[in-house]
Amino acid sequence: MAFPASLGPKLFPCGRMNFTSDNTYGATPEILAAVTAAAAGAVPSYGDDPLTGELGATMSQLFAREVAAYPVITGTAANALALSTLCPPHGAILCHAEAHIAVDECGAPEFYSHGAKLVTIEGAGGKLTPDAIEEALKHFQVGVVHHAQPAVVSITQATEFGTVYTPNEVSEIAAVAKKHRLKLHMDGARFANALVRLGRSPADATWKLGVDALSFGATKNGALCAEAVVFFDKADVRDFEYRRKKGGHLLSKMRFVSAQLTAYVEDDRWLKTAARANALTERMAQSLARIDGAEIAYPVEANAIFAYLPDAVVKRLRKGGARFYDWRPSANGRTLVRLVLSFATPDEDVDRFLDIARN
Amino acid sequence: MAFPASLGPKLFPCGRMNFTSDNTYGATPEILAAVTAAAAGAVPSYGDDPLTGELGATMSQLFAREVAAYPVITGTAANALALSTLCPPHGAILCHAEAHIAVDECGAPEFYSHGAKLVTIEGAGGKLTPDAIEEALKHFQVGVVHHAQPAVVSITQATEFGTVYTPNEVSEIAAVAKKHRLKLHMDGARFANALVRLGRSPADATWKLGVDALSFGATKNGALCAEAVVFFDKADVRDFEYRRKKGGHLLSKMRFVSAQLTAYVEDDRWLKTAARANALTERMAQSLARIDGAEIAYPVEANAIFAYLPDAVVKRLRKGGARFYDWRPSANGRTLVRLVLSFATPDEDVDRFLDIARN
Amino acid sequence: MAFPASLGPKLFPCGRMNFTSDNTYGATPEILAAVTAAAAGAVPSYGDDPLTGELGATMSQLFAREVAAYPVITGTAANALALSTLCPPHGAILCHAEAHIAVDECGAPEFYSHGAKLVTIEGAGGKLTPDAIEEALKHFQVGVVHHAQPAVVSITQATEFGTVYTPNEVSEIAAVAKKHRLKLHMDGARFANALVRLGRSPADATWKLGVDALSFGATKNGALCAEAVVFFDKADVRDFEYRRKKGGHLLSKMRFVSAQLTAYVEDDRWLKTAARANALTERMAQSLARIDGAEIAYPVEANAIFAYLPDAVVKRLRKGGARFYDWRPSANGRTLVRLVLSFATPDEDVDRFLDIARN
Amino acid sequence: MAFPASLGPKLFPCGRMNFTSDNTYGATPEILAAVTAAAAGAVPSYGDDPLTGELGATMSQLFAREVAAYPVITGTAANALALSTLCPPHGAILCHAEAHIAVDECGAPEFYSHGAKLVTIEGAGGKLTPDAIEEALKHFQVGVVHHAQPAVVSITQATEFGTVYTPNEVSEIAAVAKKHRLKLHMDGARFANALVRLGRSPADATWKLGVDALSFGATKNGALCAEAVVFFDKADVRDFEYRRKKGGHLLSKMRFVSAQLTAYVEDDRWLKTAARANALTERMAQSLARIDGAEIAYPVEANAIFAYLPDAVVKRLRKGGARFYDWRPSANGRTLVRLVLSFATPDEDVDRFLDIARN
Repeated sequence: MAFPASLGPKLFPCGRMNFTSDNTYGATPEILAAVTAAAAGAVPSYGDDPLTGELGATMSQLFAREVAAYPVITGTAANALALSTLCPPHGAILCHAEAHIAVDECGAPEFYSHGAKLVTIEGAGGKLTPDAIEEALKHFQVGVVHHAQPAVVSITQATEFGTVYTPNEVSEIAAVAKKHRLKLHMDGARFANALVRLGRSPADATWKLGVDALSFGATKNGALCAEAVVFFDKADVRDFEYRRKKGGHLLSKMRFVSAQLTAYVEDDRWLKTAARANALTERMAQSLARIDGAEIAYPVEANAIFAYLPDAVVKRLRKGGARFYDWRPSANGRTLVRLVLSFATPDEDVDRFLDIARN
Repeated sequence: MAFPASLGPKLFPCGRMNFTSDNTYGATPEILAAVTAAAAGAVPSYGDDPLTGELGATMSQLFAREVAAYPVITGTAANALALSTLCPPHGAILCHAEAHIAVDECGAPEFYSHGAKLVTIEGAGGKLTPDAIEEALKHFQVGVVHHAQPAVVSITQATEFGTVYTPNEVSEIAAVAKKHRLKLHMDGARFANALVRLGRSPADATWKLGVDALSFGATKNGALCAEAVVFFDKADVRDFEYRRKKGGHLLSKMRFVSAQLTAYVEDDRWLKTAARANALTERMAQSLARIDGAEIAYPVEANAIFAYLPDAVVKRLRKGGARFYDWRPSANGRTLVRLVLSFATPDEDVDRFLDIARN
Repeated sequence: MAFPASLGPKLFPCGRMNFTSDNTYGATPEILAAVTAAAAGAVPSYGDDPLTGELGATMSQLFAREVAAYPVITGTAANALALSTLCPPHGAILCHAEAHIAVDECGAPEFYSHGAKLVTIEGAGGKLTPDAIEEALKHFQVGVVHHAQPAVVSITQATEFGTVYTPNEVSEIAAVAKKHRLKLHMDGARFANALVRLGRSPADATWKLGVDALSFGATKNGALCAEAVVFFDKADVRDFEYRRKKGGHLLSKMRFVSAQLTAYVEDDRWLKTAARANALTERMAQSLARIDGAEIAYPVEANAIFAYLPDAVVKRLRKGGARFYDWRPSANGRTLVRLVLSFATPDEDVDRFLDIARN
Repeated sequence: MAFPASLGPKLFPCGRMNFTSDNTYGATPEILAAVTAAAAGAVPSYGDDPLTGELGATMSQLFAREVAAYPVITGTAANALALSTLCPPHGAILCHAEAHIAVDECGAPEFYSHGAKLVTIEGAGGKLTPDAIEEALKHFQVGVVHHAQPAVVSITQATEFGTVYTPNEVSEIAAVAKKHRLKLHMDGARFANALVRLGRSPADATWKLGVDALSFGATKNGALCAEAVVFFDKADVRDFEYRRKKGGHLLSKMRFVSAQLTAYVEDDRWLKTAARANALTERMAQSLARIDGAEIAYPVEANAIFAYLPDAVVKRLRKGGARFYDWRPSANGRTLVRLVLSFATPDEDVDRFLDIARN
């Protein structure tokens, strides 16, 4: 897939070799243009504007099904609002031990759900498995008031480790969830990257596999601040709109978020930017793997690389100006590092990083 | 003050004669340009970017004092986060019966504060008075666990009725608050409009009068989605940053909110847009007052008019395409309506409205 | 009705002339005996014991209808658990401005409901009226996310001012509630006193009038610590049992609360103790009314007297050792005081109080 | 230690061979007598009575230090109130994976703390170790708003597996807690049983080892419904009293809970009942261990036995009327069962159980 001409390195005069996260990059020109265009005119506020109105149709078309789609401005808000809508205060949410909702949201799901419990489950490559979910569920007695009642399984697609659940893996998890009458939530902060990897339609990657609600991320892949909570069954929406308002997440000028989302999915832009990020990531991973002493830790299936690098290489890279996170402390002379690429990471940054790493 | 050339009616091809709220209008070209410019480069996320870093200094300079200023994206978030930081779960927040926090935020302050109580107080023109606060406080016994403990007084500046507290009124309220060891919060969703009216510096209208925290609004006056919570004493910040994160209000690409706020206050742009709105409002009010049977209900001191209009006039206006809210049901042949003007309300919309009203 | 022989003044060697509240008195011998008897044997815990099992049948028989009745140990817990079950976080609860839930529970309803809003309404003698409820509802737009959504009307029977709603008053309020799809909750902390006044059956005073849920009080009328939340329609119970557990209100040795409630209603004991308190209160009120300068403020219909007494009388009474609360500060030479009598207030305490008051 | 004469099997005519939990037994005669005695007279309500007043002194004497001790009526309330006082909403509480607060309280700590996170840690015999705590803490970055901030370590003494932390083990955990500025909470639902095992004074088992707050249990060991939250440093009490009220846990007739606690500790009664339970448990364990195919799973140090029993034995016991919980499903022909004994478990029930088990 061709690299969109508009996303050239000319846009990025500073912050070179920044591989800390995809959210360190700005926004695509098309989305910026859409935001600017959206400023014209007086329109009803709080989401009653035409742009937000159209978004519903756009998302329904995208997912080949009538969906309820609500724009919000952070992934944490999307997750916490979706989860608290699906899970009562006395409920439990099963997720991976390294899930963003468990580790990186400062208890937002617990806050929004009024004290629901996150049950964390270990799993290779950031993935839950049906067996691990079944095992975790054994600790909860259904209908016994002493125990939080499992209500939701939440999986991250792509995962926090840059892997991607196969459709089969998702549908098997969905089957376990259904069997136990749990809802299946997908944290899709990097949903576009996963979709590109899978080569599937949005429908084929979500509700057709049994996903009930999706945190549809756009920010990491080129928006300024735009996510959507997507419910595939309107019965699940329940009091979502009140929760969003009560959380301070109903924007008066909602058109500016809706405009981002519309521009994001229009003309498959979201897939193009994700494809670009994934391809660049794969190229980088293949080169890294050939470096002496380097080892790729997890399958590179989206836009993140977890690699063990010799400490000397790590030191040299940092000295050269590269930014990235150590994921585990150094052990046996090498360190597990995380490298995340985005829609806008310059090719030459990757080249330069590899050059330094090689020598 | 001259009308900024950039804010011409050409920008607003639709939604004519929309006086429902100032948040029905888009954003100023300067703020849009700042957002677009902010997209360049890779910068640290979650508010560690240079733009957000500079915002602290900008706001401190603006308020002639070192302040802690936190960007958020809605007024409800600003209010709920500020109030819950200042008020414990067992606390009470005293506010006007028609305050936005009491009426229009679906219990967001109660949610964020984990069940604090809003004590609503009547008052002419949307204003609290020291006496009314004293009276309300009599119902609470300090240190008695059965009663919510008054912790904060919240006033709105400009008020929900388009009036503006005089500096003296604010400082007298602050004196009562201090006497009872309450914090004073100011909901400044339309702070710029109030400031223009007062002809005072930001410092002279806030902390110098005894205000402890300010919800500094920008959205209604030309930003896309940008407010700031400003604490004048850093000791009051306490766990605000955790609360913001837990509420899902810490944006990964915070630069896009900070850019709006910076562009908003730069070159006194915020005062210019507010001055434009206030002046247009005053003109409209003066003309309306001369219409047979019309009566201005509250002093017009900012960008809103509350007027009793003959029902026939109301009917004619709506038929002519004007949009505005009835504030009270029709009584004795006339209706109390609310008309809100903004930085971008076209002059000709006002003219046309008056034309229809007159005949 | 005869005064139960067991409730003699011999039990009360200290704290004479205590009219501060009915909860300053201990417990009836029958309830104490029931608690002691309940200690025998090993039984299932957490409410699965036989005594708690029978309580359901007992309460259903008492209310002439199958009800769901849950023992708890405080009135605040009963109210907060009942209200939070009936009202969503984005809901509003309409109640009298002086209601216990609004004034004396430190925001427990707000805490348990996760931030619902209490809407307080003024009303003579501690009573809500249909008109006042209708008026309050005008401020809320149904289905508009900006506003808390009215969900429950809560009335207190007997009221905080010692008055008792007539059946007609309750059914008119219920009609308004039903019309607006609100649930009707009755805070029956002094339900027995009200029932004695009304001379009605429990059914005729509650669900037959349209009451959906009742906080059935026993503590003030002779129990140690026992209330019950009674739902008249099992569909309203929803997640009550989880809420009770999550609030720490599910006792492991629940039998000790159930035993109190069973002994309380057995042989009409609750009506006898309430009748005794009401009769003594009436006698006291009639005598007080004849004192020079004294005035009974509200109809004395249960076990509380609100009376304006000359300040000299108040002073003399306190000097003589009487305890009671000033309800309003002294004005025009007299003070509004509250006198509450209980199942166990000694007759001679009343006599002595009147003696001192008269001279 | 002699078995108190008052605790004879004559009191327990039903529910024989109930080993499900210590809370299936009633209450000691002394505590029942104290409750009955406490009913006399009119005293101030809501904890301002003399009995509650004296309790503070009693507990301070018991712990050889001025403590703040608050009566509540369930262990879940004690834990949730204590933990939410010590841990902010954005905090994390570290505890054992099988801790009562994590498994059996339906998220009460999360509810009371407004969404704090429970971090569960595995550990042999129900015990946390300093190393495991250190390991868990590595996942949290101090001062980083994305992560819940560890604030409290909670240990259970005696543990959920009938083991008892040695003083050294507690002080080592306290050292880790202090090093990381965490508070140390002890869930002492079976504190008396632990103390008897340790042969230490209350002070030597708590604050002298670094414990900051204790849930002091009495219910399982002979009270009706009485626990106390004990803070060893008054600075830690903060807003506890408001939290208790807001949770509906401030009893109007608090004297009835205080009377239980006073009678409980008076004349070392609590130690005598615990000693009786522990001794009987030890006797039972020793006999069980000699049964063919039986194996004691954890050191029997308090009043609970976890034993693997041949499935045939389990079946025979149940057929014979014994009640107890399976703790793990049957595997390899035997089942892990839990047997809990109490202050009032009849000796002959143990004998009968052993008889059946043997043959």
